[in-house]
Amino acid sequence: MKFGINLFPTVGEDEKPADRYFQEALELTELAERLGFHHVKTVEHYFTGYGGYSPDPVTFLAAAAARTSKIRLVTGAVLPAFTHPIKLAGKLAMLDNISLGRLDVGFGRAFLPDEFAAYGVSMDESRPRFDEGIAACRLLWTEKDVIWNGTFHRFGPLTMLPRPYQRPHPRILVTSAVTPETCAAAGRAGYGLMLVPAINKREKLQDMLTLYRKEAAEAGYEPVDEDIHMSYNCYLAPDGEVARTLGRTYSENTNRKLVAAVESWTHTRSDQYQGYEKIVENVRNSDFTKHLTDNKVLVGSPDEVIQRLETIRGWFGDITISLQVITGNMPFAESVRTMELFADHVLPHFS
Amino acid sequence: MKFGINLFPTVGEDEKPADRYFQEALELTELAERLGFHHVKTVEHYFTGYGGYSPDPVTFLAAAAARTSKIRLVTGAVLPAFTHPIKLAGKLAMLDNISLGRLDVGFGRAFLPDEFAAYGVSMDESRPRFDEGIAACRLLWTEKDVIWNGTFHRFGPLTMLPRPYQRPHPRILVTSAVTPETCAAAGRAGYGLMLVPAINKREKLQDMLTLYRKEAAEAGYEPVDEDIHMSYNCYLAPDGEVARTLGRTYSENTNRKLVAAVESWTHTRSDQYQGYEKIVENVRNSDFTKHLTDNKVLVGSPDEVIQRLETIRGWFGDITISLQVITGNMPFAESVRTMELFADHVLPHFS
Repeated sequence: MKFGINLFPTVGEDEKPADRYFQEALELTELAERLGFHHVKTVEHYFTGYGGYSPDPVTFLAAAAARTSKIRLVTGAVLPAFTHPIKLAGKLAMLDNISLGRLDVGFGRAFLPDEFAAYGVSMDESRPRFDEGIAACRLLWTEKDVIWNGTFHRFGPLTMLPRPYQRPHPRILVTSAVTPETCAAAGRAGYGLMLVPAINKREKLQDMLTLYRKEAAEAGYEPVDEDIHMSYNCYLAPDGEVARTLGRTYSENTNRKLVAAVESWTHTRSDQYQGYEKIVENVRNSDFTKHLTDNKVLVGSPDEVIQRLETIRGWFGDITISLQVITGNMPFAESVRTMELFADHVLPHFS
Repeated sequence: MKFGINLFPTVGEDEKPADRYFQEALELTELAERLGFHHVKTVEHYFTGYGGYSPDPVTFLAAAAARTSKIRLVTGAVLPAFTHPIKLAGKLAMLDNISLGRLDVGFGRAFLPDEFAAYGVSMDESRPRFDEGIAACRLLWTEKDVIWNGTFHRFGPLTMLPRPYQRPHPRILVTSAVTPETCAAAGRAGYGLMLVPAINKREKLQDMLTLYRKEAAEAGYEPVDEDIHMSYNCYLAPDGEVARTLGRTYSENTNRKLVAAVESWTHTRSDQYQGYEKIVENVRNSDFTKHLTDNKVLVGSPDEVIQRLETIRGWFGDITISLQVITGNMPFAESVRTMELFADHVLPHFS
């Protein structure tokens, strides 16, 4: 298994000013590299305490790249529905060069109605926009004199600069919140996959992975488990009971932010987002105790977390795990302690 | 006068790989801070050796911010015609927070027909798109529950995150290539101004500045000279004759890239870009000797460059100068030498 850090900001101005958030996030990035973590990841979201501090993950990751030399940088994810492919391909290629080839690009369809509304993009166009955005970026990265006649964009012939550092292009991963078809398409295309354990039953995730692996194999790819990413809220303390008492706060805070962000699903329906209205209900009905029972949070003593990860490995394979150690407005010192305990006790077990 | 560095990449893949360009640009950024320069600046351009390595200046400046702590970061410029204001306001606010308030935002209308064609944006909408883009960013930075009903964008009510570090918002500057009306509008709005001496006669620039200052004063602003930015190709050597022999190469290389980039103006006309077809002719007819005579390049010994800057100060006032020390594919060691000579001999004269 590989382990990295997902810097998913679930804070608002009233909790932590943005300048402090970013200084802490950059310090945790440097710490992650020193401690031997595999990657640092961040999201694209807007307007609310659920990720709103990160409307452009590339901006943060460029700063992270400049502070580090080994750790990989992962967009988790960029949303092609909201950025023209020329701009998106260009800035990701800049980041790939600035980082000397440490970029993995996760693309997401986006799933929050308020974000689509803000950009004036119909959710009913979500999948074709997503597919076109990824395909256009790939072509811009790999070909010269590109002519693009898509449904949403037309351009060319033109040659994008800079060319990516990694040839033919950075590794592509695709986020699927709850939709099996996205997993199937990712498998057929040979992309990696990012799943969200917090909002899916374990059996559902296993079905999504089975489908992904089957479609990939049929298309002639051999997907490695490492290309499957999942993020977990993480809180460690030497004493498991202490960890659960303190970790509960940040996990519950994260959940409150998620509930507020998906609120608009109670009155939104889209053919391309079937079943999303259930996310609201699922998130509202979940609590920290159930998350512990269902193994959806990595909270406890180092030994307990090793056991949780062994269970996760049994369910999903030797996947890549992203630890959410700042999420829920965790105080900086506790993020540091969690990462240090993880690096001292948990990383060696899996290396 | 204030002096900074304009990292305007006029190189292609055949001259310098992008990864090397960015490593050098970041090292020069750190050097600029150590040597006491005021700012580092970069452009937004696409597809060609004329700035094409920098399709997203915010990505580079975020990396620059992470490597520095005092130097100011200037977009020179971002192009609102090509980025949704929610994305643009958001990532600039991220950069302002990451840099702890060191951002000045230059906005440009864009002027290369091939860039407009690539984005599918009509040049005839250039000015209203520009005006709307800046106004929307300002509102998103300063107000909550923003409702925007513009010609090109409609959204809201929504509150942008993160809020800028600088309140009410980062300093705004406006680029004018050759259009007096842009200078007048910048003055009326209380914005700073970026002019391009390489493609304008000295008297034309003085007229543009007179208009800018007059309109600003009538609108109740007192523009300071420091808020007027101009960029100059710069090459220093202890011996002036040596500097001219070597500096000629990089200046001519820059000019060749500009000629290629504006080539499409020979068959493009737009009401909103009157007289732009003359840029091609002007650039083709200019040469290094004429640039020296007209004081459009800062090339020579330190003492000679001091004299050139005194002349420029006499023409335009105590403005902010951005030195193009990487432009024209100058070798890294010569960029460093130019900056060091400038810092040792020229900066003290003007401080």
